[in-house]
This record gives sequence, structure tokens and C-alpha cells, in this order.
Amino acid sequence: MFRENLKVLDCTIRDGGLINNYQFSDDFVKAVYHATCEAGVDYMEIGKNLCESEIYNREAFGKWNFCDQDDLKAIVDSYDGDYRPVLAVMYDVGRVDTQSLLAADQSVVGMIRTACYVADIDKGLDLVKRSKDQGYETTINIMAPSAAIESDLIEALQQVENTPEVDYLYFVDSYGAFYSEQITSYLDLFKAHAPSKELGFHGHNNQQLAFANTQQCIIEGVNLLDATVNGLGRGAGNCNLELLLNFLKNPKFNVQPIYQLIQEQMIPLRKDIEWGFNDIYGISGHLNQHPRAAMKLRGNEIDKDNCYDFLINSIGDIA
Amino acid sequence: MFRENLKVLDCTIRDGGLINNYQFSDDFVKAVYHATCEAGVDYMEIGKNLCESEIYNREAFGKWNFCDQDDLKAIVDSYDGDYRPVLAVMYDVGRVDTQSLLAADQSVVGMIRTACYVADIDKGLDLVKRSKDQGYETTINIMAPSAAIESDLIEALQQVENTPEVDYLYFVDSYGAFYSEQITSYLDLFKAHAPSKELGFHGHNNQQLAFANTQQCIIEGVNLLDATVNGLGRGAGNCNLELLLNFLKNPKFNVQPIYQLIQEQMIPLRKDIEWGFNDIYGISGHLNQHPRAAMKLRGNEIDKDNCYDFLINSIGDIA
Repeated sequence: MFRENLKVLDCTIRDGGLINNYQFSDDFVKAVYHATCEAGVDYMEIGKNLCESEIYNREAFGKWNFCDQDDLKAIVDSYDGDYRPVLAVMYDVGRVDTQSLLAADQSVVGMIRTACYVADIDKGLDLVKRSKDQGYETTINIMAPSAAIESDLIEALQQVENTPEVDYLYFVDSYGAFYSEQITSYLDLFKAHAPSKELGFHGHNNQQLAFANTQQCIIEGVNLLDATVNGLGRGAGNCNLELLLNFLKNPKFNVQPIYQLIQEQMIPLRKDIEWGFNDIYGISGHLNQHPRAAMKLRGNEIDKDNCYDFLINSIGDIA
Repeated sequence: MFRENLKVLDCTIRDGGLINNYQFSDDFVKAVYHATCEAGVDYMEIGKNLCESEIYNREAFGKWNFCDQDDLKAIVDSYDGDYRPVLAVMYDVGRVDTQSLLAADQSVVGMIRTACYVADIDKGLDLVKRSKDQGYETTINIMAPSAAIESDLIEALQQVENTPEVDYLYFVDSYGAFYSEQITSYLDLFKAHAPSKELGFHGHNNQQLAFANTQQCIIEGVNLLDATVNGLGRGAGNCNLELLLNFLKNPKFNVQPIYQLIQEQMIPLRKDIEWGFNDIYGISGHLNQHPRAAMKLRGNEIDKDNCYDFLINSIGDIA
């Protein structure tokens, strides 16, 4: 598949940090940044830009939850090649301080992505406007549409359509719940109610479909694709960047630095943290549930593989 | 997805046996059989029906490579429920003794599947005819079409079309090489040149696409779908039966016994043998290679995760 305006966004650090409270070493973050530079990836999301407080501090929650300019510069300056991706950070509704936001031309960040549930769309769009006012490229990432009431989702999409400050409208399969035919049907909704917006997609791999659904999105005209190296990300993880680059035929991409990064950094990391498909996440995705319960079970060394018990309990919770 | 004539074939033992030379315990095989009975699966392929010899014997190669009637009956008779799947066995071209084949009405087997490469299509169809003469349901499973020259594949498909003894024509993604858009394009070829045949699909999960490609096949009208419990199968394994049953809405299926089997039998088995997606198989699938080299690397404890080295070496081999 080749389409010139297809772009890839690596969110390895941002989504992966949800597993370990953003306790990545600087060397690891540098290695990911260098690999995305070498691979020709278009955007790299390096963390969240949240508001620090006494309780919610850098020590406990990791520097990549806050993304101070000095921390970012240390990463960016560690690379001396020519090409580099646009750096992105994520905003969570209710947890940011827009007052402290530098103007884009004074920042190493070029894109701000705002994540919100349908219910918080007004707050989300307010953050998008403030980001755009400061000169950033913007996205609004509507989380968990699989759990939204359709009329509410449509209203949110219409609000996005009427917000010129939104550059990309993201379809986010937060629960890893969608089959590819449902991807098409939801994208039809997105296109019908926000026809002027460029679309993005962020998948989760609960049912081994993050990569397949990303392909389906490409077929349906989505032009900004999230992926992470080795699928690193919360729960079942994301679309694997290396599989996606293999699939895309755009000559600007080079997959080799990504496989090198996997061999050198991701394989050792697997000893410390777990991510990727397993039976428990498969059930949680099929049941269209937040991965919370599944992640909790995976943290229990004794019961973590008891998928039958998890299924029966989960169905019991629904009934 | 619901379509009344969609049928599911479990090949857990047959494809899984490629990993361990069919050294499954009787208790394990019984557990899989019972679960497929309880789950309402349409067919269960329990092994191969190959010709025994002094070197190629039951001790070294496992009884499920030979599927003697007595061995099969011991499994079938261990279950006392009402519903049971049609039992299937596989023929490999050049390694069977059709003279010893019982008539179907004297056998517990109901379906014989013949696997062959495009080059062996005449031999494969000969076996299909002999099986049909004895009263069996038949399939011809064309392996590795991704590696066949298209004109040869078309000729083979035309031969299948002209063989009324073939009940199902299988599209087999032996190398786990296909993307879903390619699935569609190859199925168009199958439908154009063998328009009278019901189609089957057997996927491999090298690129995390076995389940997604099976869905794509359903959309394209394929009615017989292979899957294995927990994806157990050679190399990257197959389409996960439990994910497929979750997807299919046909009320004849019940996924719960499959998850129970995973919890009780598959999780312990994972300590002894490896199957499923990993980086090495992802590369081998993308490069449309036989999984031989990837499996060999996975058997090397020291180097088995060196995906970058594997990629560079594999590209070197191609060049």
C-alpha cells in the first residue's frame, strides 16, 4: 500500500509509559527517538504534558508524564542526523496547565494530541483551540467510541467538524473491541459527521487485530496511523510499527532501525514489563470492556492465565 | 457475522503435531476432542493418515501421524455426549497408502483432506478421487499459493474445477504472507477458475493476521474455516479458534469449553513447546518465506530473539 499523504505516528513511549508509569531510562527514550529518526517516521509522541503537583510528581510518575522542555531537548539534541519526526505530546482533559504552554516556535514540540471521552468533548476541543492558538498541529483523540451511545458520538463528531482548530480527528479503539467490518462502519459515521477532517487511527491488539484494523483504516482513507515499536503499549499493546512499515511501501520508511531497536532494547525490556496479546485481553476486547480488570488479573502471578475463570466472571459482571 | 453454511474445522492436533512430532498424550487429544464436541465445532482434524515404515514409525513420529482406527476409536469412545464433529485426517502427497483405506462407512473418519503444492496437483487430485471413491468428504488444500507462479496456480485451479470428487478447495496461507487485500485478490482467482467449488481457508499468524484474514475470507464467501485452540500450530500458529467463535454469531457454537481447555491444557503445554507470533515469524511472513529458517532460529536459545540479524541475513539470502 502506498499513498503519499499517509503518515505514521510512533507512540511507543507515550502508550508504553502507561505500563510502567513512564519510568523509562533516558537511554531507552533516546534509542526509540533515534530509531524513529532513522526509520523516517513522521511523528513521534514522547509522552504526556500533564500538570505536576506535590502528589503527581516526576519521581513517582516519570518525567515523560510531564515532558519538560529541558528533558525533551536532551533527547532531541542527542541525535545529529538530518531527518527527525515532528515531536508530539498528549494532553489529558482536566490534567493540563495550558497557561504554561510555550508557543510552538519556542518549543521542540510540534503537535499536541488531546485525548478525551465523548462526554468530555467540549473540554477536549477547548484544549485543542488553546494548542492551535499557540501554533501547534493538533489532534482530538476520541477514546472508547465502542462504548459510546451513538447519538452522543455523532454530536461530538459534529462539534469536531465545527472546530477548525482540529487538524486530525482520531478514531481510537481503546478497548481493542472492533472487528474490521465495524471499523468501516464507524469510519462511515466519522466521515458523515466530520467530512472536512483528516482522520487518524489508534488501535489496540486485544483480539490480534490492531495491525489488521490499521490496514482497514488505510483502505477507508485514514491518513495518520499510530503504531508502537514491537506493539509496546498498555495491556494488549498497539499496532506493531515494524509490521506496519513492512506493509507500507512508501520509500521514505526504513524498517531496519526498528528491528535493531527491538533486538537491542525491546527484548531485554520484556523481562521487566509485559505487553501484547494474550487470552485475557482477547476476552476483554471481545466483551468491549476497559482493559482495567484484565490488566489487574495479569498482575496476579498465580491466576493470570485463568482465562476460563475470567470469561465466566466477566460474563457474570455483565449479566 | 452469521451465515448458516459457515463451518469451522478445528485442526489443533494436526497442525500442532507439526511442532512436537505428534507426541501428544491421549489425555490431551481427548480433552481437545471433548472441547470441540462441546463447542459445536463442525469438523475436527485429528492428525495425518500417513504410511508407516521401519524408519517412519509410531514411536518416533507419534501415533497421530498415522491415525489407526483403534487409536481414533479410543478418542471417540471416550466422549458420551450427543453432538460430535466430523472427524478429519490429512493426506500428504507421496506418503500415504490408499490400499489400506477403509470405506467411510466402516471408519470413524468422515473427511479426508489432501495437502499438496501446486506442482503436485495431479497426485493430490488422485488421492482426492480415491478418498471420494471410498465415500469420504474431501478437500484439496493447495499449499503456499503465495510462492506459486500465477499461471501454474490457475492451471491447478482449473484441474480442481474439473474434478467433481473435490468437495472443498482450500486456500492455504502456508507462509503467513498475505495481507487481507491480497486475500481478496487471490480468492478472486480461485473463484474465477474454480467457480463451482466451495472454498476453505487455512491461515498462519506470522504477521498477526491469521484471524483477520479468516474474517476477510468470510466476507469473500469462504465457508469452511480452519482454526486451532489458542492458535496452536507450527511456527506462528494459526487462527485462534476462540477468537473465531467469539466473532461468529452462529448459536450452534459455544466458546466456553474452548477457554476451559486453554486454561487447563494449553497454558501448561506452553512450558514445553512454543507457538504463536513473534518478531522472527513476522519477518519470515513478510518476506514470503517457508517458516523453516525462522523455526530453526527459534530453536536456538541464545540467538532466538535476534530479529535484526535474522532480517539482515534473510535479505542477504534473497539478494
